[in-house]
Amino acid sequence: MSKNKKFARESCVTMTELVLPNDTNTLNNLMGGRLMHWMDIVSAISAQKHSNRIVVTASVDNVSFKKPIRLGNVVTLKAHVTRAFNSSMEVAIEVWAEDIPSGQRIESNRAFFTFVAVDQLGKPIDVPELVPETDPEQELFEGALRRRQLRLVLAKRMDPKDALELKSIFNLD
Amino acid sequence: MSKNKKFARESCVTMTELVLPNDTNTLNNLMGGRLMHWMDIVSAISAQKHSNRIVVTASVDNVSFKKPIRLGNVVTLKAHVTRAFNSSMEVAIEVWAEDIPSGQRIESNRAFFTFVAVDQLGKPIDVPELVPETDPEQELFEGALRRRQLRLVLAKRMDPKDALELKSIFNLD
Amino acid sequence: MSKNKKFARESCVTMTELVLPNDTNTLNNLMGGRLMHWMDIVSAISAQKHSNRIVVTASVDNVSFKKPIRLGNVVTLKAHVTRAFNSSMEVAIEVWAEDIPSGQRIESNRAFFTFVAVDQLGKPIDVPELVPETDPEQELFEGALRRRQLRLVLAKRMDPKDALELKSIFNLD
Amino acid sequence: MSKNKKFARESCVTMTELVLPNDTNTLNNLMGGRLMHWMDIVSAISAQKHSNRIVVTASVDNVSFKKPIRLGNVVTLKAHVTRAFNSSMEVAIEVWAEDIPSGQRIESNRAFFTFVAVDQLGKPIDVPELVPETDPEQELFEGALRRRQLRLVLAKRMDPKDALELKSIFNLD
Amino acid sequence: MSKNKKFARESCVTMTELVLPNDTNTLNNLMGGRLMHWMDIVSAISAQKHSNRIVVTASVDNVSFKKPIRLGNVVTLKAHVTRAFNSSMEVAIEVWAEDIPSGQRIESNRAFFTFVAVDQLGKPIDVPELVPETDPEQELFEGALRRRQLRLVLAKRMDPKDALELKSIFNLD
Amino acid sequence: MSKNKKFARESCVTMTELVLPNDTNTLNNLMGGRLMHWMDIVSAISAQKHSNRIVVTASVDNVSFKKPIRLGNVVTLKAHVTRAFNSSMEVAIEVWAEDIPSGQRIESNRAFFTFVAVDQLGKPIDVPELVPETDPEQELFEGALRRRQLRLVLAKRMDPKDALELKSIFNLD
Repeated sequence: MSKNKKFARESCVTMTELVLPNDTNTLNNLMGGRLMHWMDIVSAISAQKHSNRIVVTASVDNVSFKKPIRLGNVVTLKAHVTRAFNSSMEVAIEVWAEDIPSGQRIESNRAFFTFVAVDQLGKPIDVPELVPETDPEQELFEGALRRRQLRLVLAKRMDPKDALELKSIFNLD
Repeated sequence: MSKNKKFARESCVTMTELVLPNDTNTLNNLMGGRLMHWMDIVSAISAQKHSNRIVVTASVDNVSFKKPIRLGNVVTLKAHVTRAFNSSMEVAIEVWAEDIPSGQRIESNRAFFTFVAVDQLGKPIDVPELVPETDPEQELFEGALRRRQLRLVLAKRMDPKDALELKSIFNLD
Repeated sequence: MSKNKKFARESCVTMTELVLPNDTNTLNNLMGGRLMHWMDIVSAISAQKHSNRIVVTASVDNVSFKKPIRLGNVVTLKAHVTRAFNSSMEVAIEVWAEDIPSGQRIESNRAFFTFVAVDQLGKPIDVPELVPETDPEQELFEGALRRRQLRLVLAKRMDPKDALELKSIFNLD
Repeated sequence: MSKNKKFARESCVTMTELVLPNDTNTLNNLMGGRLMHWMDIVSAISAQKHSNRIVVTASVDNVSFKKPIRLGNVVTLKAHVTRAFNSSMEVAIEVWAEDIPSGQRIESNRAFFTFVAVDQLGKPIDVPELVPETDPEQELFEGALRRRQLRLVLAKRMDPKDALELKSIFNLD
Repeated sequence: MSKNKKFARESCVTMTELVLPNDTNTLNNLMGGRLMHWMDIVSAISAQKHSNRIVVTASVDNVSFKKPIRLGNVVTLKAHVTRAFNSSMEVAIEVWAEDIPSGQRIESNRAFFTFVAVDQLGKPIDVPELVPETDPEQELFEGALRRRQLRLVLAKRMDPKDALELKSIFNLD
Repeated sequence: MSKNKKFARESCVTMTELVLPNDTNTLNNLMGGRLMHWMDIVSAISAQKHSNRIVVTASVDNVSFKKPIRLGNVVTLKAHVTRAFNSSMEVAIEVWAEDIPSGQRIESNRAFFTFVAVDQLGKPIDVPELVPETDPEQELFEGALRRRQLRLVLAKRMDPKDALELKSIFNLD
């Protein structure tokens, strides 16, 4: 592909972690903060692959933790860029956990992290466009605009009246 | 105070961390994931203090990272419970970073984490009510309802039509 | 597939690590011991997936380190089981390192780790057969016998005269 | 001794580690990868002492893990250089584990790591000869040649026909 | 306050730590060395705040460990400068531990660490005077002289005959 | 030796650590707290060897830090029991640091840690007597009584008038 366009599969990163004692609380469940730490690393690597730049975390969307992940579980994280906006990239992360001896597998989380590509002085720098290829990629690409407006409204950097895309979340029209 | 009511100051926790080399990226800035790990610990301790129970992270609201925090900076995190809902508690966390030799201090982040109090088997258990005392506490207490509706809508556990409080974010009425 | 036969792809595991300051020596190169630690974790997870059991490291074959991996590089490790022998499994691991900003990618290492599946008391227990599907898998499957004989000879648990497969390494016939 | 000759005892290093929870698997046994990490550090320090240079790990010989080492055990690692070849050094490491309250002591592993001495730019640089003094040191010194040929054959950097020393392992003559 | 005078409250630092598995011994009690590590960090930050300089640990006074702190406990450390002497500062640290579910709180330790402020080359540099405001601060300020003499006598840098303040500890007059 | 007497050499432990980036402050010097953490581990293992029991840290005597230890230095710690008192043991620790490429070696610290041997319930239990063999061991054995009185006086558990041995520090008679 041309230099300023890239596919989602080019930024796909898989990370596997074993839940060790220091990652867990007194119920032997993985602590949410450790999981977010892993999410940040896998998605930062994904954004690096898309941009071939150093990247910094700009924001983390609402993450909810449904089911406990246990000591000894194997956690797999998969990340890829969903859409690029000038110097920023949204990355989708899927997380699941497996208890291998019992063969049990838990869909744990889906999250969105946003990164900004920077040069050696830390100044934002433009990144390639993301071109969706498959249907799920297209859906994520379109949703990225809506999530971006929510981020800007929550950060008080956009007037809610101008968040046209966002209204679809609330079925307002 | 009676056993099932508590003040915000009773769950106030301060944590101080020094940014070490392994906490930073190749630009010598604190990685977002490490900061979220610290936020999770300080707010979990705060929710523990409010409930006198083991707690598990239920969700993290949208967090945005404004300014880089540097290697060698001192990071201070302050957390307290803003409101309780049956077995869940919302905790507000404020973060700032100081470069002590230069005397520079950066307001870094404000975030909201939600925890559920559980018994030894991991089953949710009711917690005391939070009674706001000061004006800022009252404001956080009221906003908690709105943030809770946004969480439920984003987790597809509430119909946006029923999220009455949420509409105020978008000035919809 | 039947319960006591499994394909290589069923035990395939990918792990991604970022080289942080504490992983490096004073030349800012990844220390060999840290890399072997990661190799052990990724291959243990692979052997767990094949056997659905707890596994313990039985041996590590000769590993050579060709080119330095640098601070800030992204290291990817891929592992899958090559062959099973009663309660033991040989796992092949491929490692490469990327300097993402420069787009440089280094083939770093190929290694073989052997694991034994054990029950809750630590007693060895039989695992499914590995059935190779592709040509490279078939080649690894056949080589596994030779590598096993070398391991047994080096551990003085097999008389070199009986290591018939091994002679092919040294072109002795 | 003269500047370009050194005794094995001059590079002797002892390291003691306590097995902590994060070093163990779900059976509470030390993970093989953590032990190799410690082996790499103790042998790198030994090679540094022999060469008075920065060193990089060049290869690890076949290591086998016989008996499990338990959480709370004290692990002792002893390393010294066995022989030098231009810029490379072979280091022998002995490992044993003690369960102090019961007074039980386990001979755990013997391993050989090879290091290359480098200058500040990472370029190989010659190191002093190793002069064996005792009978066991003489035996290790002689075996080093054989092990080196095995390494080179396995790395496909030597034709097995030329590995004259190696034949003794397989009693071929 | 003027540039070369500062109050104790200006160097007050609070640190909160959760006791994780790797911090404990086989009885699940916090190891003394880990606690001293935390004491060093909180008191170094306090000395940095007083001096607005990089600081190095100069000495640690006798510390005694009275009651065990347990896995899962929340440890709170509070530090402030008690007195300054040219380029050195004495910092008092108070430590307590809480078992939050049971509501039990243990006064654990009180300790004194001494730091020296240094410039970028590591050369000692003068720091502001500490001006006590409250009665406990005044008491700590006065005791600092006595503790300093004990340090100097123990380090054989002061003749016990000249340690006039010290005699009060031993009721010698 | 008989079951309730032991020599100092039976509890001798050597530990070697490499100073890594996360162990250092912004001047690239080893932090005092990390060094005390290592001192605690090496001396706890020594006390375990003397008593064949689980041990808990009871106190740390005044430690002073003379010269900075640098990133990349090799730190060696040597510990042995100096004297036993019922269930408690004093351990002496010597620390030195080496910059191997330059061949520079720094005598860094000498410290005394005290441990109590406990049973599985954490109750103190008697340990073997320590029998000094060499002149330096005899000197440490005698000094242990004096240091013990200083500890008890500082912990306000002994009246200074009764600390007869202690007076020799201050040349009072």
